[in-house]
Amino acid sequence: MNELLADLQQRLHYRFQDARLLARALTHRSFSASHNERLEFLGDAVLNLAVAHRAFEALQGYPEGDLSRVRAQLVREESLHGLALRLGLPEALQLGEGERRAGGRERASILADALEAIIGAVYLDGGYPAAQALVGRLLEGVAITPSLAAAAKDAKTALQEWLQARRMALPRYEVVAITGAEHQQTFDVRCTVEALGRRSHAQGQGTSRRAAEQTAAATMLTQLTESVL
Amino acid sequence: MNELLADLQQRLHYRFQDARLLARALTHRSFSASHNERLEFLGDAVLNLAVAHRAFEALQGYPEGDLSRVRAQLVREESLHGLALRLGLPEALQLGEGERRAGGRERASILADALEAIIGAVYLDGGYPAAQALVGRLLEGVAITPSLAAAAKDAKTALQEWLQARRMALPRYEVVAITGAEHQQTFDVRCTVEALGRRSHAQGQGTSRRAAEQTAAATMLTQLTESVL
Repeated sequence: MNELLADLQQRLHYRFQDARLLARALTHRSFSASHNERLEFLGDAVLNLAVAHRAFEALQGYPEGDLSRVRAQLVREESLHGLALRLGLPEALQLGEGERRAGGRERASILADALEAIIGAVYLDGGYPAAQALVGRLLEGVAITPSLAAAAKDAKTALQEWLQARRMALPRYEVVAITGAEHQQTFDVRCTVEALGRRSHAQGQGTSRRAAEQTAAATMLTQLTESVL
Repeated sequence: MNELLADLQQRLHYRFQDARLLARALTHRSFSASHNERLEFLGDAVLNLAVAHRAFEALQGYPEGDLSRVRAQLVREESLHGLALRLGLPEALQLGEGERRAGGRERASILADALEAIIGAVYLDGGYPAAQALVGRLLEGVAITPSLAAAAKDAKTALQEWLQARRMALPRYEVVAITGAEHQQTFDVRCTVEALGRRSHAQGQGTSRRAAEQTAAATMLTQLTESVL
């Protein structure tokens, strides 16, 4: 373990005063009661601030909504998972026997959480500037541009803007069905757009009303852009 | 305005190097295109981290879920609104004519946003340590205790735990009606609990499914604890 920790500190370009913090950041709850979830809670907040600040500086003059979308794009699980792989976190994780056999070492959520926990550990060990610098190194190759905000724009927003640009009425969303047991419900949502006296529908499904609306909006947007209304 | 800003800096116990940042933090979008929303975005992240750190230290050994609930309790709009009033923010706000006439100076969301923007402005002006110290002063009188976590537990969680402790089945939530136009919808949710062959209902209303479920759960919990099922 000690050699793994030393290697990882090299890749992080950060040397811990208290290496036990790093060891803890790599410990999944399946391995020990001294696991990384509290550090992850802290690291998540550190990451959010460091990325918010980067977006704030990179996108001068852009509205809060763009900053918020860019941040969401940068801190989402898939992005963190990719960074965790590059840092070689799978080898360094401490997992319980069962979790290891179930492929936990490759699970995106476990890896993303461990990365957040490392950021939290650096914050405790070296203060905010050290953690901010680490986040800066992690995101070194990522250009923060307005197009990142546009790419991260959700389907409902994109649909709304598409319609507004054409002076069309806003879409309507209705839940047409909710099925399944509590905590496992599926929502069916219908999106309706009216323009020039014609009416178009698109349906979407999801595990929440919001998710279903997004799917319906994405389908509607595809329909609209691929055909004349 | 200059005297207002000077007074406010005294109450904040923070002197800005660049007082324009403070002026901007107090500017609502109804007053000027140079408004406070980007600063608010940054300040929200600063506040989240500073409060996460305080909860982390005050609640040693408590799980992440408790930290998260304590933080949510401390940074919610009502809490920030109270702090904004104590700082005398209503007088210092820059609002457009219409917003001022509509009572914007007293609106909780405008005041809470301005306070977050001030925290963001201090972060930019003096760095994270200065902003963290400000948050520390703002929360000086607030004891962060495990009971705060329990109090902050949401009604659905509280109901679920109450039922589980009595080995009763989990509640069911159903949307029974959705009314109103898009973005102004009202959800009616029915909560059903079954135990010992009897069935109890409680209804709740809210501007989201989640909010309506919380209201229904709170009503159900009151019914259950005030009577025998």
